[in-house]
Amino acid sequence: VRQGVPEVIYGQSKTKEQIGGILAAMEKRGSRNILVTRIGQEVADYLAEQFPLRYEPLAKLAVALPEPVKGHGSIVVATGGTSDMGVAEEAAITAETLGNRVTRLYDVGVAGLHRLLGNLEPLMSARVVIAVAGMEGALASVVGGLVDCPVIAVPTSVGYGASLGGISALLSMLNSCASGTSVVNIDNGFGAGFLAGRINQMESAKE
Amino acid sequence: VRQGVPEVIYGQSKTKEQIGGILAAMEKRGSRNILVTRIGQEVADYLAEQFPLRYEPLAKLAVALPEPVKGHGSIVVATGGTSDMGVAEEAAITAETLGNRVTRLYDVGVAGLHRLLGNLEPLMSARVVIAVAGMEGALASVVGGLVDCPVIAVPTSVGYGASLGGISALLSMLNSCASGTSVVNIDNGFGAGFLAGRINQMESAKE
Amino acid sequence: VRQGVPEVIYGQSKTKEQIGGILAAMEKRGSRNILVTRIGQEVADYLAEQFPLRYEPLAKLAVALPEPVKGHGSIVVATGGTSDMGVAEEAAITAETLGNRVTRLYDVGVAGLHRLLGNLEPLMSARVVIAVAGMEGALASVVGGLVDCPVIAVPTSVGYGASLGGISALLSMLNSCASGTSVVNIDNGFGAGFLAGRINQMESAKE
Amino acid sequence: VRQGVPEVIYGQSKTKEQIGGILAAMEKRGSRNILVTRIGQEVADYLAEQFPLRYEPLAKLAVALPEPVKGHGSIVVATGGTSDMGVAEEAAITAETLGNRVTRLYDVGVAGLHRLLGNLEPLMSARVVIAVAGMEGALASVVGGLVDCPVIAVPTSVGYGASLGGISALLSMLNSCASGTSVVNIDNGFGAGFLAGRINQMESAKE
Amino acid sequence: VRQGVPEVIYGQSKTKEQIGGILAAMEKRGSRNILVTRIGQEVADYLAEQFPLRYEPLAKLAVALPEPVKGHGSIVVATGGTSDMGVAEEAAITAETLGNRVTRLYDVGVAGLHRLLGNLEPLMSARVVIAVAGMEGALASVVGGLVDCPVIAVPTSVGYGASLGGISALLSMLNSCASGTSVVNIDNGFGAGFLAGRINQMESAKE
Amino acid sequence: VRQGVPEVIYGQSKTKEQIGGILAAMEKRGSRNILVTRIGQEVADYLAEQFPLRYEPLAKLAVALPEPVKGHGSIVVATGGTSDMGVAEEAAITAETLGNRVTRLYDVGVAGLHRLLGNLEPLMSARVVIAVAGMEGALASVVGGLVDCPVIAVPTSVGYGASLGGISALLSMLNSCASGTSVVNIDNGFGAGFLAGRINQMESAKE
Amino acid sequence: VRQGVPEVIYGQSKTKEQIGGILAAMEKRGSRNILVTRIGQEVADYLAEQFPLRYEPLAKLAVALPEPVKGHGSIVVATGGTSDMGVAEEAAITAETLGNRVTRLYDVGVAGLHRLLGNLEPLMSARVVIAVAGMEGALASVVGGLVDCPVIAVPTSVGYGASLGGISALLSMLNSCASGTSVVNIDNGFGAGFLAGRINQMESAKE
Amino acid sequence: VRQGVPEVIYGQSKTKEQIGGILAAMEKRGSRNILVTRIGQEVADYLAEQFPLRYEPLAKLAVALPEPVKGHGSIVVATGGTSDMGVAEEAAITAETLGNRVTRLYDVGVAGLHRLLGNLEPLMSARVVIAVAGMEGALASVVGGLVDCPVIAVPTSVGYGASLGGISALLSMLNSCASGTSVVNIDNGFGAGFLAGRINQMESAKE
Ligand SMILES: Nc1ncnc2c1ncn2[C@@H]1O[C@H](COP(=O)(O)O)[C@@H](O)[C@H]1O
Ligand SMILES: Nc1ncnc2c1ncn2[C@@H]1O[C@H](COP(=O)(O)O)[C@@H](O)[C@H]1O
Ligand SMILES: Nc1ncnc2c1ncn2[C@@H]1O[C@H](COP(=O)(O)O)[C@@H](O)[C@H]1O
Ligand SMILES: Nc1ncnc2c1ncn2[C@@H]1O[C@H](COP(=O)(O)O)[C@@H](O)[C@H]1O
Ligand SMILES: [Mg+2]
Ligand SMILES: [Mg+2]
Ligand SMILES: [Mg+2]
Ligand SMILES: [Mg+2]
Ligand SMILES: [Mg+2]
Ligand SMILES: [Mg+2]
Ligand SMILES: [Mg+2]
Ligand SMILES: [Mg+2]
Repeated sequence: VRQGVPEVIYGQSKTKEQIGGILAAMEKRGSRNILVTRIGQEVADYLAEQFPLRYEPLAKLAVALPEPVKGHGSIVVATGGTSDMGVAEEAAITAETLGNRVTRLYDVGVAGLHRLLGNLEPLMSARVVIAVAGMEGALASVVGGLVDCPVIAVPTSVGYGASLGGISALLSMLNSCASGTSVVNIDNGFGAGFLAGRINQMESAKE
Repeated sequence: VRQGVPEVIYGQSKTKEQIGGILAAMEKRGSRNILVTRIGQEVADYLAEQFPLRYEPLAKLAVALPEPVKGHGSIVVATGGTSDMGVAEEAAITAETLGNRVTRLYDVGVAGLHRLLGNLEPLMSARVVIAVAGMEGALASVVGGLVDCPVIAVPTSVGYGASLGGISALLSMLNSCASGTSVVNIDNGFGAGFLAGRINQMESAKE
Repeated sequence: VRQGVPEVIYGQSKTKEQIGGILAAMEKRGSRNILVTRIGQEVADYLAEQFPLRYEPLAKLAVALPEPVKGHGSIVVATGGTSDMGVAEEAAITAETLGNRVTRLYDVGVAGLHRLLGNLEPLMSARVVIAVAGMEGALASVVGGLVDCPVIAVPTSVGYGASLGGISALLSMLNSCASGTSVVNIDNGFGAGFLAGRINQMESAKE
Repeated sequence: VRQGVPEVIYGQSKTKEQIGGILAAMEKRGSRNILVTRIGQEVADYLAEQFPLRYEPLAKLAVALPEPVKGHGSIVVATGGTSDMGVAEEAAITAETLGNRVTRLYDVGVAGLHRLLGNLEPLMSARVVIAVAGMEGALASVVGGLVDCPVIAVPTSVGYGASLGGISALLSMLNSCASGTSVVNIDNGFGAGFLAGRINQMESAKE
Repeated sequence: VRQGVPEVIYGQSKTKEQIGGILAAMEKRGSRNILVTRIGQEVADYLAEQFPLRYEPLAKLAVALPEPVKGHGSIVVATGGTSDMGVAEEAAITAETLGNRVTRLYDVGVAGLHRLLGNLEPLMSARVVIAVAGMEGALASVVGGLVDCPVIAVPTSVGYGASLGGISALLSMLNSCASGTSVVNIDNGFGAGFLAGRINQMESAKE
Repeated sequence: VRQGVPEVIYGQSKTKEQIGGILAAMEKRGSRNILVTRIGQEVADYLAEQFPLRYEPLAKLAVALPEPVKGHGSIVVATGGTSDMGVAEEAAITAETLGNRVTRLYDVGVAGLHRLLGNLEPLMSARVVIAVAGMEGALASVVGGLVDCPVIAVPTSVGYGASLGGISALLSMLNSCASGTSVVNIDNGFGAGFLAGRINQMESAKE
Repeated sequence: VRQGVPEVIYGQSKTKEQIGGILAAMEKRGSRNILVTRIGQEVADYLAEQFPLRYEPLAKLAVALPEPVKGHGSIVVATGGTSDMGVAEEAAITAETLGNRVTRLYDVGVAGLHRLLGNLEPLMSARVVIAVAGMEGALASVVGGLVDCPVIAVPTSVGYGASLGGISALLSMLNSCASGTSVVNIDNGFGAGFLAGRINQMESAKE
Repeated sequence: VRQGVPEVIYGQSKTKEQIGGILAAMEKRGSRNILVTRIGQEVADYLAEQFPLRYEPLAKLAVALPEPVKGHGSIVVATGGTSDMGVAEEAAITAETLGNRVTRLYDVGVAGLHRLLGNLEPLMSARVVIAVAGMEGALASVVGGLVDCPVIAVPTSVGYGASLGGISALLSMLNSCASGTSVVNIDNGFGAGFLAGRINQMESAKE
C-alpha cells in the first residue's frame, strides 16, 4: 500500500458481500477509520451488523471502525444551494476523516450574494476552499475571485435541462481556472476532500 | 413593414454592393438612423462614399443617415472582461440608436467582484440590464441576484479550450434563468440591445 | 429579502418535511400566495394537511395560503402542442399568482398555422408573449415575427430521438433571437412566468 | 452506369486536372449536361477552356456540355433568408438540369410570415417542395404544415453561435418530420434537387 | 381538416381517457381507420372496450374502427436487423392503412449482404423503399446504391455504447443522401410510412 | 528502442530542422527505411537535400534512407471514395515499408456496390483488410460482412455537414465491430498500416 | 453460413421464446458451444430447462450445448478495475469458447501501476492483449506501450460524471492507436474476444 | 490589488498598444517581473522597444521588467510528448517567475513508460506535479498513481481526429481525479503554474 493514500472503498459497483469481505481484510491488518463511499442505507445496515460503523445518509458514505480524529489546519466547504449538500458532505467527511478541520458554508450561491459576503471571515482565513455547485457553477468563480488560497471546484449534477447532468457547471468551472482554481469530476466530493486534505496538510518547504 | 421593428440590415452575409442597394432604397422611402450590423472597415468605407455614415469599429456596425436621437429610460450594459466589449458595444449602440439611454459598466466580471460592487448605483436604478460575458458567464448570475429588473444575458465566444466558442457561457446563463434573466444567442449584441429597448420603452399597463 | 422576488419554494430536490418546515416559517412571518414548484401529488397531499393549499397537477405546482390576486396588464402563454401544457401552466400560474392577467393559447403550433392565425387578436394586444414549444420549437420564431412586444421562449423536453431532451428546441429558439425574443432553460415555465410578470408590470419611464 | 443516376462530378476534393480528365471521358462516351458541383470560379475557368460550360457562381456549380432541357412537373425551392440562396440554387439548377420545372421563392422565412403567405399559389400547386433554411430552420415546419406534397428540408450552415454550423437547423427539421417532410445533409442542395426530381417525375402506379 | 393528412393520434404523451375522447369525436364525424401510435397494450385494451380496434403490439400502434383498405403501388420496408422490426412495422402498417401495398424485407442488414442480394427482385421493382436500421445504419447506403427510386432512411435507437441512442445511425444516413435518399427522425416509423405513401401515390405530372 | 516498433517520426508538430536532426541521429545509429509522416512538400524538399528520401505527396509521408523491402503475406487497403486515398496511401506505404505485401482497392464504396463485388478475389484471400472511408463509413460494415480475416476500419475526415469531421464515420464503424472489425482514430492511416502489418506477420501459435 | 463466424445469438433485444427457438434450430443442424450474449439469469433459467447450458452471471452470457474446447495460443485479458470485469469476462469466455487459451489480469489499472508491472511475464508473452477499462481508459495506452503484439482496447461504461457512459474512455483509447492498438465499441466484450481469437489463430503467411 | 495575485496581462485579445499602456502604468506603480501571456513575436518586439523584456517563443509569453527570482520548494512539470512543450513552458515559466523552483520532465508519456520510470527521483520528491498531455491524457493518471503530492493536470489541444481539440484529454483527466489530481482548462499552462506555485509555497498549518 502506497503511504498517503487513505483506506477507502469505492462502494458504487460492489455488492455488500464484497465490501464486507474487503473491510474484514482491512480490519485484520489493523486499519481504522475506513471510508466506504457511494453506498445506500441498506448496504450500510448490512455492514453495521459486522463492524462498528457510522453511516452518513446525506453523503451516502460510511466510516467503518471509526475512531476520533483531530482536525488540523482549515478547509472551507461551500455550496451554491441546498441540493449540493450531499456532494459537499462527501467532501467534508472525507477531509475530516483524514485529519483536517472543516468549516461548512452551505447555500451561499451567487443568487444570494449577501449570504456569501456575510461569511467572509472563515472564507478569507481558509487554507483551501472546496466550492460545490451545480447549474451554472458561478460560485467557484466568485469564491476564486475573493480568496488567495487554492480553490477546488466540484461541479454537481443538480439541475435540469441545459444543466446537462453537471456538464454546464463543469465547463463553467474550467473556464475560471486562471487564478488558483482547479476542477474535479462531476459529483466527486471524495476526490475534492482528499485533495484538499493533501494541500491543507502541506508543510513549509525546506528552503 | 411591421411597426416597432427598427430599420436594420444584417451585413454579415451580404456584399457591399447589396448593402448599398438596400440602403439606397431605404433612404428613398425616408428612413434615417439605419443600423448596418456585422460589417468591417472596408465595407463601411465603401458605404461612406455614398451615404452619411458613422462607423463603430469596436462594435463592427454602422449607423447610416445618422440623426440625433434622444435617450429615454435607463439600460445598463455590463461586461465581464475587456474582450467582451465588441459585443457589448453592438448592444449599446443598437439600444441608443433606438432611443434608449445607456450606461456602460465594462470589465466588472466576478473575478474582481469589488469593481461590480463599487458600481451598484447605476445597476440598481436600471430598468433593464444587459450582462455580456464569455468563458464561465458568471456575471449574469451575479447581476441577476442583485437587481430587480429584467436581465438579458449575452454569452460571448471569448475564451479558449473548454469555453467551446461560447457554449460554456451560454449553458451557464441558461441555468441561472430563475429570477428575471433570459438569454440570447452567442455574440448577439444586436438582439439584446433591441429587446432591452423594447422593455425599457414599455408604458404602464392600462389597468 | 430582496423586494420584487416572489415567495417561491423550488420543490424538486427537497423532502416534504423540508418543504413543510419552510412553509411554516413563511406563514409565521406573514407570507401568502407562496408558490411551491415541481412537486407531485403525494407531496401536495402531505402539505395540504397542514396548510390551505391549491395544487395544480398539470403544472405540478401548488399555491400555499392562497388568496385572491387581481391580474394586471396582459400576458399570452402559447404552446405548440398539447404535450407542452404542463410547462405552460407552470408559467401561467406563476404569472397569475404574481398579479398578472394571463390568456392561454394552447396547441397553436406551426403544424397547424391556421389555429395560430385564427387567434391573432389576443396575441397582437399582449404586452408580453411566452412561447412554449418542444421538438423543433418553431412557434417562437413564428410568434416573434408577428408581435411587437417582448417574446420569452421556453423550450420543452417533449419529443424523442433528435429532440435530444429539449436541446433541439433550445437551439432553434436561440437562433431566432434577433427581433425581441429571448430564451430560458428547457422546461423552465416558472422562470418565464416570473420574467414575463416583471416586464408586464413595468411602468412608463420617467423621461 | 446505373440508369437514373445523373452524370455528376462531386468537385470538392478533386483537382481541376482530375475533373477535366473525367469530363473528357464522359464527353467521349456521349454524355451531355454534366453537373460539376462544389467548384470555384478558378476551376470553372480552367474547365471552360476545354469544354462548353455554364458556371453558376452563386451555386458554385457548372453544367458542362450544356444543352437545352425541357422542364416537367413542378418543384418549388423556398429559402428562409437571402443567405440560403447558394444552397437553394444548387438544388434548383440540379433539378432543372435533370428535366424538372422549378419555381423559386426566396427569403420567405418565418420572421416575415406575410411574404410566405403572399406566395401560397405556387406553393400549394407544387408536386414537391424543397425548403432551405439555416439558423432555426422553422421554414420547413411551416411549409410542411401548409402543403400536401412531399417536402425535402435542407438545413444550411448559415448563422453564428448556437446555429452550430447547421446542426441547429438540422435538428429542427428532423423534429418536424411527421407529416410528409424528410431531411438531407447540411448544405446538400444537390441531394435535395436530385431527390425532388425523382419524386416529381414519378408516374402513376399501375394499380 | 387539411385533405391528405390521415386521421392519426400521437398517443405517447396522452392519457387513455384523452385518447378515448378524441376517438369518440372522430367516430362521430365519420372517421374510419384511425391510427393511434405509440401506445402500450394497457391503453389498447382500454380503448378496445369502447371501439372496434386492431392493436399491433410490435409496432405499438392501433387501428381504430378498422375497415379493409386496398393497397396500391409498391413500397418496400427493409430492416438491418430483427431489433428494428418494431419501427419498421410502425412504418409498414401506417403505409398500409393509408392505402399502399407494402412488402417487408426484414433482417437484410449489411452484416449478411447475401440476404439483401437474394431479395433484389422486390427491391428493384419498388416505387419507394423505407430503409430502417440502427447501429451503423449502413443499410440505407447500400440500398440507396442499388435502387433508382426514392429511399427514406429511418435511423433506430437500437444498439448500445457508441450508437448513442440512434445518433450514430442518423449521422450515417444523412451522409449518404446524395443519390435519392432522405432521412426522418430516429424511430419515426410513422413519418416514413406516411411520406412513402405520399410519394407512392403520386400521379404522372400533367406535362 | 523496443523491438517491433518501426523507425518513424511523427512530423506534424515538428519543425523541419527538428526532423532533420532526428533523422541524422537515426542514420548514424544505422536505421534505414525511416517513415516521416504528416509532412508537406516543403519539409520534404528540405530533408531531401540532406538525405536520400522518397516523398509521397498523396500520403504526405516520406521514406528516408529508402531500401528495397520484400513484401510478405497479404494486406488489402480498400477505400469508399477517391477522397479517402490520402489516408489509404499513408496506411499502404506504412505497411509496405514494414515488409508487407499490399493490394489497393480504391473507390469501391457502397454507393457502387458492384465495384466492390467485382473485386472479391483479392478481398477474400487477404490476411488483413484495412477499410478506409469517410461520410457514412458503411464500407467497413460491408467488408466486415464479407471477409473472415481481421478488418481494421479507418474513418476519414472527408465530407461536410453532418460528417462532423469524421465523427459520423467513426461512430458508424464502432457500431459494426461485432464480427472481426476494430477501429483506429480518424485519418490515422499510419496506425492502421502498422497494426495490419503486425497481424499479417503473425506466425502460427506453437500449440 | 460463412465459415469462421461462431454460432452466437445476441440476446439483448430478443424474448426468451425467440432465443429458445433459434437454439432449437441450431441444435437440430448440429451446432454445439453456442454463445448467447447479454441475457439475464431469468432468461438463462428458462433456456436451461430445455438445453444443456452453462450460464456465466458476471459476463451475462451463456454457452448452450457446451462441450470441452481446447485452448490454443495465448490471449491476455486485462482490466483497469474490478468494475470492468463483466465486460472482460464476456471477452474472455467468448475467446475460450472459440478455442483460445486466455489469461486474466484483472484490476491492474494505472492507479496502481505496480500491479501491472508485477505481471509483465504473461503480458509480454501474449499473442494478443485485450485491454478493458472505463473512466480514463489509460490502461490501453500503458499496455500498448509495453507489448509488441496487437492490442484490442475495450472502453467500458463504468464511471460517473465526465465518464459520459464510456465516451471518455473511448476517446482516450482512439487517441493512443498509433502503435498496434485498435478499439471496439463501448462494453463490446464479445467483439473483442472474437477478434482476438481471429488474430491469435492466424497461421504463418505462406511467403 | 489583492495580495497573492501576480502581475500578469492576458495578451490574447488585446492590441499591442493596449498591452504597452498597461505595462507603462504597472511600471509606474513599481511592478517588476510582469508576465504577459499568449502574445506572438511581433507583439513582443513592439514591447521590447519600450521595456526591458524577456520573450519566450515556445511558451509565447514574456516577462517584462525582469529581475532575478529565487526559486523555492519543488515543482515538477512533466509532458507526454514534445508537442506539449509550449503549454508546459507557459506553466514552468509562470511558476518560476512567481518564485518557485521547477524541474522539467518532457516527453515522458505512457507510450514510453521507461522514460517516466527512469525519472522517478525528481517526481517522487516533488511538492507539486503539473502533468501536461494531449491526445489520451494518460500521463496524469500514471503520475497520479505514483506520487503522493497534489497533481495538476493540464489537457492540451495537441492531436487530431478524436482528440477533439483537447476534449478527449480533458475528459480523461477528470476521470482520474480520485487520488490527488485536479484539472485546469485545455492549454491553460498559466493557470496550472500559478496554482502550483500557491500550493508549493504553503506553510505548515499553525496547528
Ligand atoms: N466517491 C468516489 N468517487 C471517486 N473515486 C472514489 C470514490 N471513493 C473512492 N474512490 C477512489 O476509489 C479507490 C478505491 O477503489 P476500489 O479499490 O475499487 O475500492 C480509492 O483509492 C479512491 O481513489
Ligand atoms: N448582428 C445581428 N445578429 C442577429 N440578427 C441580426 C443582426 N443584425 C440584424 N439582425 C436581424 O436581421 C434582420 C435583417 O436581416 P436582413 O433582412 O437579412 O438584413 C433584422 O431585422 C434583425 O432582426
Ligand atoms: N454537392 C454534392 N453534395 C453531395 N454529394 C454530391 C454532390 N455533388 C455530387 N454528389 C454525389 O457524388 C457522386 C459523384 O461523386 P464522384 O464520383 O466522387 O464525382 C454523384 O453521383 C452524387 O451522388
Ligand atoms: N500519422 C501518424 N498518426 C499517428 N501517430 C503517428 C503517426 N506517425 C507516427 N506516429 C506515432 O508517433 C510516434 C513517433 O512520435 P515522435 O517521437 O513524436 O516522432 C511513432 O512511434 C508512432 O507511434
Ligand atoms: Mg483566486
Ligand atoms: Mg434577479
Ligand atoms: Mg418580433
Ligand atoms: Mg405537410
Ligand atoms: Mg440511389
Ligand atoms: Mg467479418
Ligand atoms: Mg505497442
Ligand atoms: Mg496520487
